[in-house]
Amino acid sequence: MKMKLKRNPAMMITTALMMLFLATSAMAKEPKYVFFFLGDGMANSQIQAAEAYLTTINGGSAENAEDLLNKDNRLNMTQMPVVGMQTTYDAFALMTDSASSATAFAGGIKTMSGVIGMDNTKTISYKSIAQLAHERGMKVGVISSVPLNHATPAAYYASVPNRGLYNDIATQMVETGYEFFGGGGLLSPESPNNIWEMLDNAGYTVLNERNEIMELKNNPMDKVVCINPWLQDGGAMPYAIDRPETNLSLAEMTEVAIAVLQGTKPGNGKGKALGTGNSFFLMVEGGKIDWACHANDAMATIGDMLDFDNAVSAALEFYKKYPNDTLIVVTGDHETGGMTIGHATTGYRAYYDRLLGQKNSFVYFGQQQWTDHKNAYSEFVCANNGWKADNNIENDGIMLGLMKEAFGMEWTELNDYQKEKLEDAYDKSMCGVNDNSDAENKLLYGGYNPIIVTITHILNEQASIGWTSYAHTGVPVPVFAQGKDADRFAGFYDNTDIAKQLAKSIGVREELPIAK
Amino acid sequence: MKMKLKRNPAMMITTALMMLFLATSAMAKEPKYVFFFLGDGMANSQIQAAEAYLTTINGGSAENAEDLLNKDNRLNMTQMPVVGMQTTYDAFALMTDSASSATAFAGGIKTMSGVIGMDNTKTISYKSIAQLAHERGMKVGVISSVPLNHATPAAYYASVPNRGLYNDIATQMVETGYEFFGGGGLLSPESPNNIWEMLDNAGYTVLNERNEIMELKNNPMDKVVCINPWLQDGGAMPYAIDRPETNLSLAEMTEVAIAVLQGTKPGNGKGKALGTGNSFFLMVEGGKIDWACHANDAMATIGDMLDFDNAVSAALEFYKKYPNDTLIVVTGDHETGGMTIGHATTGYRAYYDRLLGQKNSFVYFGQQQWTDHKNAYSEFVCANNGWKADNNIENDGIMLGLMKEAFGMEWTELNDYQKEKLEDAYDKSMCGVNDNSDAENKLLYGGYNPIIVTITHILNEQASIGWTSYAHTGVPVPVFAQGKDADRFAGFYDNTDIAKQLAKSIGVREELPIAK
Repeated sequence: MKMKLKRNPAMMITTALMMLFLATSAMAKEPKYVFFFLGDGMANSQIQAAEAYLTTINGGSAENAEDLLNKDNRLNMTQMPVVGMQTTYDAFALMTDSASSATAFAGGIKTMSGVIGMDNTKTISYKSIAQLAHERGMKVGVISSVPLNHATPAAYYASVPNRGLYNDIATQMVETGYEFFGGGGLLSPESPNNIWEMLDNAGYTVLNERNEIMELKNNPMDKVVCINPWLQDGGAMPYAIDRPETNLSLAEMTEVAIAVLQGTKPGNGKGKALGTGNSFFLMVEGGKIDWACHANDAMATIGDMLDFDNAVSAALEFYKKYPNDTLIVVTGDHETGGMTIGHATTGYRAYYDRLLGQKNSFVYFGQQQWTDHKNAYSEFVCANNGWKADNNIENDGIMLGLMKEAFGMEWTELNDYQKEKLEDAYDKSMCGVNDNSDAENKLLYGGYNPIIVTITHILNEQASIGWTSYAHTGVPVPVFAQGKDADRFAGFYDNTDIAKQLAKSIGVREELPIAK
Repeated sequence: MKMKLKRNPAMMITTALMMLFLATSAMAKEPKYVFFFLGDGMANSQIQAAEAYLTTINGGSAENAEDLLNKDNRLNMTQMPVVGMQTTYDAFALMTDSASSATAFAGGIKTMSGVIGMDNTKTISYKSIAQLAHERGMKVGVISSVPLNHATPAAYYASVPNRGLYNDIATQMVETGYEFFGGGGLLSPESPNNIWEMLDNAGYTVLNERNEIMELKNNPMDKVVCINPWLQDGGAMPYAIDRPETNLSLAEMTEVAIAVLQGTKPGNGKGKALGTGNSFFLMVEGGKIDWACHANDAMATIGDMLDFDNAVSAALEFYKKYPNDTLIVVTGDHETGGMTIGHATTGYRAYYDRLLGQKNSFVYFGQQQWTDHKNAYSEFVCANNGWKADNNIENDGIMLGLMKEAFGMEWTELNDYQKEKLEDAYDKSMCGVNDNSDAENKLLYGGYNPIIVTITHILNEQASIGWTSYAHTGVPVPVFAQGKDADRFAGFYDNTDIAKQLAKSIGVREELPIAK
């Protein structure tokens, strides 16, 4: 086979080789902007429930493939081009906790439940990819809807043998010099160390008004801690379905972080800044997906899933501006609650419109309506044994009204078995007795307020959503990725591999884990 | 930038272009051997349960990441290089049935539950990828552990408005001329059409002895129907954990099919044979994973998962011989049972060794030990209302002995709540009353034998496995692929896309769906 060449062949080869060289160089360059989104407790069921709900509120039907597959009814994450799957075990458990899984994602090391940033003998501390990024001159942001010194965010800056050492964790947080922290509050911030004073001394500005925080988008400020105005429970941001307008969404917090990380001068890291402009690593945790799943509240779960996915959307908007320099990775750390997209009582049919009647989360109902009612309902009499009450829920018109108002649940539409379950739970909640060491209670209520968890169970089952646990479960979790280096996240691998691949993408040449 | 060239540049360019041409041609060529493995009812939970069990029987611990990640304790499928994820909805349901999902995989079209190879108006029939492959001169094999005219295998050769039209489906099966059918038996084979006679007239040999079938590996025969000697329930092969030595595993059936499809002359299709040698398309269904999950029997599920994965291994052995010509795709059609890898009663701990005591499937126990005992236990007296029996399970020593013998379950180790559940179920099973329209029964037993499903529920929960349904669920399902064209199956897509990609891999140039 012979071909005739009309131009100078030597020049053509030179050109081709130059193009090859340039293409290879471009391929080898790390992304400048790396986002890692972690949906705590998020696996396939949480994703599918959110999409079926989204389809329903957008006016479609969760029982119609065309509607379910409509791009407008899909989450941003499931439309990302690269899909992977990861195993979530920790060193000594099929069902990891968030401390060990966060250590896997952040440091590339398997450890035992409860341990952050250390090995399973609790003797060696490891660097997180956030710390490594900072050392390389990238700016770093850490966002979580739960407290900023909770297990998942902590793994990006702290090493402790026990996730409960909140003051120690917060102390290490101050020492990072990271440019941005945002989301929930701080647990145990005053003793032994006064974290607020430490933050001040380290040059951090702490903001907790919506307007002040949002203003950072126009006037970014380096070294800032943004705490959502209302901390609903356990120092966390409110569930998305409970959020007042004076608060921030996870997407807003993400937009603020992007402005801060991109808008100010290069970070304080020891290393050399990558590329010519700024570069950053931002971790965003949707932490209350997990909390809602622990409580088996599908609507609170879905609300926070959508909130989390909107934060992903904020990163995708950024990606559109810098498609060749941005990497976005989205995953969960484990499934929580044993959530299923189907239930024995509804068989092959789904009824997501049943969820539309729920106004607020289980926490909001418990803190507000339920507590008010219980305190006010003087006619209720607990029997001597403390378990069986003299009153029936059926005669408590106010309670039945609250169920309708807060959950869209009509007493008269329930079947006898559901009524019986509510009656038992009501007695236990009104009498303040719920012995979680009892096998039946452990299964039925899992330590949660019996009447509230029974209401969400029944409501969820009516919609065709089941739950089997109040803990984490061990099912593999999906990974979604888009942008520069996204292909690294295709395939089936272990959660520690995510840290290892992210490390490569932020330009760390050493193999993880790297001891401190 | 200038480079000096020591050889004739024109020749180098010619060589480079030729290499490029050859490389491109090689890339464009379709794989000659295409395997599609379908685990009916298989999603992430079934996969994870099988791997945790495999880890346990191999002497490791399901509570140790190192053991769980050991390649010897992993399924073949999760070690394949390409991972995807697919949505499983059918035209009018979040939770598909196996007829509509099989139609999606086989024909690339969404239809309604119960319909095979037709659109959702039940008026237009579509060609399956198996038919298209056959038309292109590829040989075709269809294997299923359930009857050969059950929904999933049927979708590869038949078009019917109702999956229950078994005689019609079997008639269409005979007319295909496909080279190999193997697995379970035929439902309704005698009326109106006598399928056995039709098969004979069409030149098919029907074998149902293990030795005869296995002999095909040495002396392959074209147009053969291999029916497993023992059809345990509903015309299906036995559960793997119940299989006697005189029967075949799914892996053995797959090996036989490979020998038949590769060993004899090109098929009877109208089209032109691909490439220079034989080529084939083989579909293998692990159909009883689904049946076991419907019944909430984890051990029967795991047994058939391992059997299915061994069949995948047979294809991987073949792949080693023809790595450039073989494509293997493995997926499930939907999840069944709402299986979860965790349970409220065990929290964060897993105990897979609890499963080791179960000797046989729920079907085997029901057909054998349970029936014998119930018939022989003359002392049992049902009360007048038919529900509440006068006898307690606790006093039925033979029954407690059977529970220990068949499931490794010790009565004295159960808690009061578990005992209470068993007592209720025992009464209902002994009195032969189980009204599945009653809400409580629907949840607790789902139409299955109350005492047996209660035993498997408790045993599974003890191991940390939960169930929420007796039906299919709507969670997305993983896809695994290896070999030529495997990259087509990366990403997140719909189940109909699998047919569309497979069609490309078997060289169909038209866009699916293609009407008959």
